[in-house]
Amino acid sequence: MPNNAIEVEANLIREQPYFASQGSEIELFDAAYRNRIPVLLKGPTGCGKTRFVEHMAWRLQRPLITVSCHEDMTTGDLVGRFLAVGGETIWQDGPLTRAVRHGCICYLDEIVEARKDTIVVIHPLADDRRVLPIDKLGMLLKAAPEFCLVISYNPGYQSVLKDLKQSTRQRFVAMEFDYPSADLEATILASETGIDPTLADLLVRFGQLTRNLKGNGLEEGASTRLLVHAARLIQSGTQPALACEAAITRVLTDDAEMLSAIQALSETIF
Amino acid sequence: MPNNAIEVEANLIREQPYFASQGSEIELFDAAYRNRIPVLLKGPTGCGKTRFVEHMAWRLQRPLITVSCHEDMTTGDLVGRFLAVGGETIWQDGPLTRAVRHGCICYLDEIVEARKDTIVVIHPLADDRRVLPIDKLGMLLKAAPEFCLVISYNPGYQSVLKDLKQSTRQRFVAMEFDYPSADLEATILASETGIDPTLADLLVRFGQLTRNLKGNGLEEGASTRLLVHAARLIQSGTQPALACEAAITRVLTDDAEMLSAIQALSETIF
Amino acid sequence: MPNNAIEVEANLIREQPYFASQGSEIELFDAAYRNRIPVLLKGPTGCGKTRFVEHMAWRLQRPLITVSCHEDMTTGDLVGRFLAVGGETIWQDGPLTRAVRHGCICYLDEIVEARKDTIVVIHPLADDRRVLPIDKLGMLLKAAPEFCLVISYNPGYQSVLKDLKQSTRQRFVAMEFDYPSADLEATILASETGIDPTLADLLVRFGQLTRNLKGNGLEEGASTRLLVHAARLIQSGTQPALACEAAITRVLTDDAEMLSAIQALSETIF
Amino acid sequence: MPNNAIEVEANLIREQPYFASQGSEIELFDAAYRNRIPVLLKGPTGCGKTRFVEHMAWRLQRPLITVSCHEDMTTGDLVGRFLAVGGETIWQDGPLTRAVRHGCICYLDEIVEARKDTIVVIHPLADDRRVLPIDKLGMLLKAAPEFCLVISYNPGYQSVLKDLKQSTRQRFVAMEFDYPSADLEATILASETGIDPTLADLLVRFGQLTRNLKGNGLEEGASTRLLVHAARLIQSGTQPALACEAAITRVLTDDAEMLSAIQALSETIF
Amino acid sequence: MPNNAIEVEANLIREQPYFASQGSEIELFDAAYRNRIPVLLKGPTGCGKTRFVEHMAWRLQRPLITVSCHEDMTTGDLVGRFLAVGGETIWQDGPLTRAVRHGCICYLDEIVEARKDTIVVIHPLADDRRVLPIDKLGMLLKAAPEFCLVISYNPGYQSVLKDLKQSTRQRFVAMEFDYPSADLEATILASETGIDPTLADLLVRFGQLTRNLKGNGLEEGASTRLLVHAARLIQSGTQPALACEAAITRVLTDDAEMLSAIQALSETIF
Amino acid sequence: MPNNAIEVEANLIREQPYFASQGSEIELFDAAYRNRIPVLLKGPTGCGKTRFVEHMAWRLQRPLITVSCHEDMTTGDLVGRFLAVGGETIWQDGPLTRAVRHGCICYLDEIVEARKDTIVVIHPLADDRRVLPIDKLGMLLKAAPEFCLVISYNPGYQSVLKDLKQSTRQRFVAMEFDYPSADLEATILASETGIDPTLADLLVRFGQLTRNLKGNGLEEGASTRLLVHAARLIQSGTQPALACEAAITRVLTDDAEMLSAIQALSETIF
Repeated sequence: MPNNAIEVEANLIREQPYFASQGSEIELFDAAYRNRIPVLLKGPTGCGKTRFVEHMAWRLQRPLITVSCHEDMTTGDLVGRFLAVGGETIWQDGPLTRAVRHGCICYLDEIVEARKDTIVVIHPLADDRRVLPIDKLGMLLKAAPEFCLVISYNPGYQSVLKDLKQSTRQRFVAMEFDYPSADLEATILASETGIDPTLADLLVRFGQLTRNLKGNGLEEGASTRLLVHAARLIQSGTQPALACEAAITRVLTDDAEMLSAIQALSETIF
Repeated sequence: MPNNAIEVEANLIREQPYFASQGSEIELFDAAYRNRIPVLLKGPTGCGKTRFVEHMAWRLQRPLITVSCHEDMTTGDLVGRFLAVGGETIWQDGPLTRAVRHGCICYLDEIVEARKDTIVVIHPLADDRRVLPIDKLGMLLKAAPEFCLVISYNPGYQSVLKDLKQSTRQRFVAMEFDYPSADLEATILASETGIDPTLADLLVRFGQLTRNLKGNGLEEGASTRLLVHAARLIQSGTQPALACEAAITRVLTDDAEMLSAIQALSETIF
Repeated sequence: MPNNAIEVEANLIREQPYFASQGSEIELFDAAYRNRIPVLLKGPTGCGKTRFVEHMAWRLQRPLITVSCHEDMTTGDLVGRFLAVGGETIWQDGPLTRAVRHGCICYLDEIVEARKDTIVVIHPLADDRRVLPIDKLGMLLKAAPEFCLVISYNPGYQSVLKDLKQSTRQRFVAMEFDYPSADLEATILASETGIDPTLADLLVRFGQLTRNLKGNGLEEGASTRLLVHAARLIQSGTQPALACEAAITRVLTDDAEMLSAIQALSETIF
Repeated sequence: MPNNAIEVEANLIREQPYFASQGSEIELFDAAYRNRIPVLLKGPTGCGKTRFVEHMAWRLQRPLITVSCHEDMTTGDLVGRFLAVGGETIWQDGPLTRAVRHGCICYLDEIVEARKDTIVVIHPLADDRRVLPIDKLGMLLKAAPEFCLVISYNPGYQSVLKDLKQSTRQRFVAMEFDYPSADLEATILASETGIDPTLADLLVRFGQLTRNLKGNGLEEGASTRLLVHAARLIQSGTQPALACEAAITRVLTDDAEMLSAIQALSETIF
Repeated sequence: MPNNAIEVEANLIREQPYFASQGSEIELFDAAYRNRIPVLLKGPTGCGKTRFVEHMAWRLQRPLITVSCHEDMTTGDLVGRFLAVGGETIWQDGPLTRAVRHGCICYLDEIVEARKDTIVVIHPLADDRRVLPIDKLGMLLKAAPEFCLVISYNPGYQSVLKDLKQSTRQRFVAMEFDYPSADLEATILASETGIDPTLADLLVRFGQLTRNLKGNGLEEGASTRLLVHAARLIQSGTQPALACEAAITRVLTDDAEMLSAIQALSETIF
Repeated sequence: MPNNAIEVEANLIREQPYFASQGSEIELFDAAYRNRIPVLLKGPTGCGKTRFVEHMAWRLQRPLITVSCHEDMTTGDLVGRFLAVGGETIWQDGPLTRAVRHGCICYLDEIVEARKDTIVVIHPLADDRRVLPIDKLGMLLKAAPEFCLVISYNPGYQSVLKDLKQSTRQRFVAMEFDYPSADLEATILASETGIDPTLADLLVRFGQLTRNLKGNGLEEGASTRLLVHAARLIQSGTQPALACEAAITRVLTDDAEMLSAIQALSETIF
C-alpha cells in the first residue's frame, strides 16, 4: 500500500541534471520561488522545459512531482480520492496534494490539455492564499512554505478551445524557452552521446534546416532530443543518413512530399 | 475524518484583508446583507472581487467559504454526498451546505463556468424561501439567518453558451468592479511590496498602457496582481525591464507581434 | 436518516402567501385540481408563478414539493434511489415519489430544462392512469387522490432543443401569467417593503420602462422581485438611483450601451 | 422488496377500458397475437393507441406492462440489473424481462425515443426465436407463449435521427390510428364526462378546426383527451370559452399569432 | 447463478433450421471454418443471414452464441466482468469469451453498430493468433480449435461514421446474401405457412415490386420475413389486401405518398 | 485469479515467427533497443508490422505484450486498477505496467485510435526518465532495463482528429513498412499455404492490381494476409476465382461499381 512519506523522498533528484542556461532563467525562477509566485514555462516540444524544472528541483533540493496533463484528467486525479482497501476506506493524496503537503515542486506539464476543473483547482494555490481546498475531506490544505507550482505549455499548439484563461494566466510569472544556440546544441550532443564534434555540427545544421520548415509544411522542427537520438544511433553503428531518416525525418512528418524535401536536405549534409 | 464544526471556524478571516474602497461597495453589500438579498459581483480578472468578499467576511465576522466554479462541478460537489467510511455510510456536507447550515458567506467564483445543475441548485436559496433542498437526504435545509450567497463572473468572458439565465440573475443585487485609480494602485503596490513610490508609479503607468490594448489584440490588461508580482521581483533584485517582461508581458499574451508591441511600451518607461 | 413522514409535513405552508389575483387563476386551478387534471403554468421570470403555486398549496392545505429542473437532473433524482446506509441498502423516495405517495402538490419548475427521461416519467402520472412506475422497485405506485402535478416554463426562453413535446403538453390544463398591473404592483411593493407609495409608483414606472425594452436589446424586463429588492435597499437607506442601479439595471444586462440607456431612463425618474 | 409474482398480477386490467373501434383493429391485433407476430402502432398523440393496448390486454386477459421510452433509457432499465440489498446481491427483472417470463403484453410507448441499445435488445424477441438474451445472467430467456410485444410511435414526430431501422421495423405487423370520427368523438365526450350533447358537438367541431391547422403553424391538433379535459372543466362550472382556452388553445401553442388565431376560431363557436 | 457449461449446451441447435442455398455459401463457410478464417456476411435486412448462421451451427454441431451489436455495447458486455455476488467477487464470462472458451460459433450481428472498442477486441481473435486478451483477468485466452467468429452487416445502411475499418475487414472471408429467387421464395412461403401456392406467388410478386422501389423513396423492400407474416395473417383469416397492408406496406414506410403508391401496387395484385 | 509472473512467461514467443526482411529494419530496431529509444512503426494494414514486432520479440527473447488501441481505452486499461476480490481490494497491473515491471516489449497497435490520456501516459516512459507514474498507487515505477515500447499506426488513415502530437512523436525512432516485393510475397504465399508457385504468382499479381486502385475508389489494397486467405481457400478445394472473390474482392469494398471493376480484373487473371 502507498506510503506517501517514502514516495515523496523518491522524487528527490540526487544527481545534477545537465542544463545549459541561455539567459537569466535560473535567476528569474529563483526570484519567483523566493516570492512564492508560481511559474509558467512556454516553449516548443523538446526544447528543455522539463529538464529545466528538474535542474531547479535539484538546485533547490525539493522533490519534484511531475504530472503530464491530458484531456481526461479529473480533479480527483490531481487532488486524491478515497480508496476501499481491505474493507476500510482510506484517503489517498493525489500528486498535487502530496506536493502541497510535503513542500515539493509540482510540475503540471502541458496544462492546456487538462480539463477546466483541473485548471481551476490550482487557482487558490496560485495566489496569496496558497491553499488547496480538498472538498472530499472538507478541508483547506495550507501549502508548505517550500511548495512551488510550475506549469508549462507549447504556445505553438494552443487552439482556441485549449486556451489558458486570463484568470489562470494572471497568477504566474512567465518564462519563454527556445532551442539552444548552434554551438551549445553541438556541445550538448557531444557531451550526451560522445559523438564526434564534426558530426555533431552536421546534425545541428540539419536540425536547424528542419526548424526553418516550421509553418511551411512542418508542424514543428527537430528538437534537441531528436538530434540526440540520431547521434546515439550513429554511435551504435548506424549510417548517419539512415540514422537521420529514422530518428528525425520520419518522426517529423508522414507527408510524402515533405518527407522527400527533408531527405533532400539530409543528402546535402551527409 | 472531516469535522465540519472545526472546518467552519477555519474559514474565519482573523486579520483585516487590505481593501481600498472606490465607492459605495461596502454600504451596498451591507444593505443587501441586512435585507438577505444575495450579491452578484462583476468585473475583470484580478481587479479585487475576491479580496472584497474577504474584506466583507472579515468585517461581518462570518466564515467565508469560497468555491471556484468549473465546467465539471456537479451538484454533489456543492451540496454534499454520502461517503463509505470504514463500512459505514456517512453524509458529508458540501461547501454550500456547510455555509447554509453554519451561517457562512458562500462565494461562488466564476459562476458562469458551472454546469446548469449547479446554478439551479441555488435558486431556492436566492429568493424569499432561503432553503436548500438536499435531495439525497430528502430534506429542506433552512438557511441560518447569517448565511449570505455571493457569486461573481467576468462579463468580458461571457459567451452565449455560458450566460447566466435571467431566472438566475433576477435574484441578486449586482455590483461592478474595475481596476483601482492610478494613485490608489500605486499606494497598493508600495504598501504590499515596499517598492519605491517612483517605480510604483511607473509600474502603474505600464499597467494602464496594457489595459488600453484590451480589445485591440489583448484579451485583458494587466491586473493589479501582476503589477504586485513585478514589484516583488524587482524588490528581489530583478531588473525592472526583465521583471515586467516575466511578470506582465509574457503573462498577458503568446502572440509574437503583441509581445513586441508591449515590450516597446515597456522600453519607453523603464 | 431521512424520515419521509416528517419531511412531508415540513412542506406544508402554514401562513397565507400573498397572492394578488388578476383573473380567474384560482378558479381554473381549483377546477383542474378537482378533476385531477395536471396544470401547466407559463410566464416570464419572477412574475409570480411560484408564488401562485404556494398560494394554492396553502389554500388546498396540501404540502408543496418544489423541484427546480435542470439539464443534468435524472429520473433517479425525481423518483428515488437505493442508498447504502450502514451495510444495508435502503430505498429513498425522490421528491416526485414522496408527493405521489403522500398526496402532495409536486411543482416541477422550468420543466423544459430537464432531460427527456425526467419529462417522460410524468406521462403515466399525467393521464387517467395516475400511476408512477418505479422501475427500480418493480412496482406501479398509484397516486394518492390529493396528488397534483404542476409544471411551469417561460415560453420566452424556449428553444427548439428545449421544447415540450406535444405528447407531454397534451396532458395539462395551461394557464398564462404576466406581470401585475401598475396599481397592483405598487400595492405589492408597499405591502412587502413598507416603502412610500410615491416611490413605489416611480419604481413601477421604471420597471415598466425596462419591460418595454424586451426584445430591443434586453432579454427580459425587471420582474416584480427586482422592484421589491430596490425598494428594500431604499428602505435600508440606499439612495433610490443607486438602489435601482444595483438591484435592477446591472442585474438586467452586462451590455455597456444597454446599461447607459437604462441609466438614462432611471435619471428621468429619480 | 420487489415480488415479481405479485407485481405481475397488479398489471392485470380488471375493468373493460372503453375503446370505440373504427375498423378491424381488434381482429388484426388478434391475428398477430395468435401468430406471435409483434405489433407496431402508429398515430398522433392522444388518439387512443395506449387505450387500445389496454383494451386488448383486458380482452386477452394478459397483464399489461407499459414502458414510456426516452433517450436515456438503458438496456438495464428494460432487462434488469443486480441490486445490492442488505449485503446480498440479487437480480431484479426489468419490465421487459417480467413480461417475457410471465407471458404479459409489453408495450414500449414511443419506441423511437429510446437509445439504439434498447431497440436492438428486442430483436431476438421479435422474430422466430422469441428469446431474450440476458447477458448479465449469461442466459437466454425463452418467452412464455402468451408474451406479446407491442411498440408505438408518432410518425409525425420522427426525425432522421430518431428513425426506426428497417431491421427493427421488418419484424412487426403495423397498424395506423387516427382521431375518431366526429360522431364517435362526441359520443366519447358525453359518455366520459356527462357533458350536454350539443356542447360535445361544439367541442368536437373546435377540435377539428385545430387539427386542420396542423402543418400550418401548429405542430399537432387537439387530441380527444384535450376535448375531454375541456368538457370536464365545463362540467365543473368553468365558462366554455375559458375552458377551451385553458384546456386546448394554450396547451397547443405558445406562439402569440397562433394563439389569437385559435382564440378567434373559438369565438365563432362558443 | 450462471453456470457456463449448462448455458453453452443450451445454445446447441438440435433441429435443422430451414435454409435454401442459392449458391456455394455452405461450401465457402465450410472451407473458411476448416482454415480458421473468420467469416463476414453482408446483405439486406431479413434476407436470411441469421438463418444461414443457424444452419451452419446445426450442420457443424457447434453451439451458436448470437450477439446483436448496438452503439452502447462495451467491451465488458462481450468479454465479461466481475460481479459482486453475496460478498464474493466472481468473474463472469461474456458471450464472446464463452464462445472462445467452449469452441462455439460466435455471431456478432450488425457489427458496424458497435463501438470501436468492441470491434477492436476481436482483432487478435481474427488473425493467426486466435487469442482473446482478457485485460481484467490479466490473461490471454487461447481460442478452442472449434471456435468460429462470424460477423454481419447491411452495406445499404453503412454510413461514413459506421464504417468497418480496413484493419478489421482484412481479417475475414466475405459472403454476400440477397433475397431468394421468386420460385424459391414461394416455396419458402408455402412450406413455412401452408399457404396456397397461387397466393404465395402473388405475395412474392408483391414483395418484388416493393424491392424495385428501393432507392426510389423506399429505404428497403419487403424481406422474406414480411411475406411470411402476411401469409400467416391470411392463413388466420385476414383478407389478403388487409394482411399485405398491415404486414408489409405500413411496415415499410410512414410516407403518405409512398403508402398510396404501394397500396396501388397491392390493388393490382389482390 | 491473475498471477502476473505466470502470465508474463506466457507472452514469450518460443517459435521463430516468419519475417522476410526487406531492408535494415532489424538492425535499426536493434540499435534503438540497445539505446533504449522507443520505436514507432508506420505502414498500411496487414503489411507485417505486427509480425515484425513478434519477430523482434523472439529474436531478443523478451515477452511481447500487445494492446490493440481503441477510442474507449482508458489509462486504467493500460496501467491497472484496484479490484475488489473476495472482500479484499487488490491491485492488478494493466498490460503496460506488466511490461514495464517485467522488462517486456509492449506493443501499442494503432496508437492513434487511443484517447489522449492513454497516449500521454507513455510520455515519461518514452524519454530519459523511463518511469511510469502509477497515480493510483502513488508511485513511480522505474522501467526494467529490458523494457521496450513500440507503437504503430497507419498514416493512410490518420485524420486531423486522430493525429499524434509532436510532443509524442518526438520521443521515437520511426520505421516505415510496406507490402513485400512480388517475388518475396509469392514465396511467403507458397511457404505459408503450400500453394502452387504459379498460382502464388497470379495471386500476387491480383493483389498488386488492387493496390494500384488505392486512392482511386479503394481505401486500401489487398494485404498479404488476404492473399494468404485466398490461397488457403484454394488449397481447401475452392475455385480460384471464387476464392479471390470471397477472400479479397468482397472484403475490400461494398461499392457495386468497384466490386465489378475488381471482378473484371480477377477474370483477366484466373
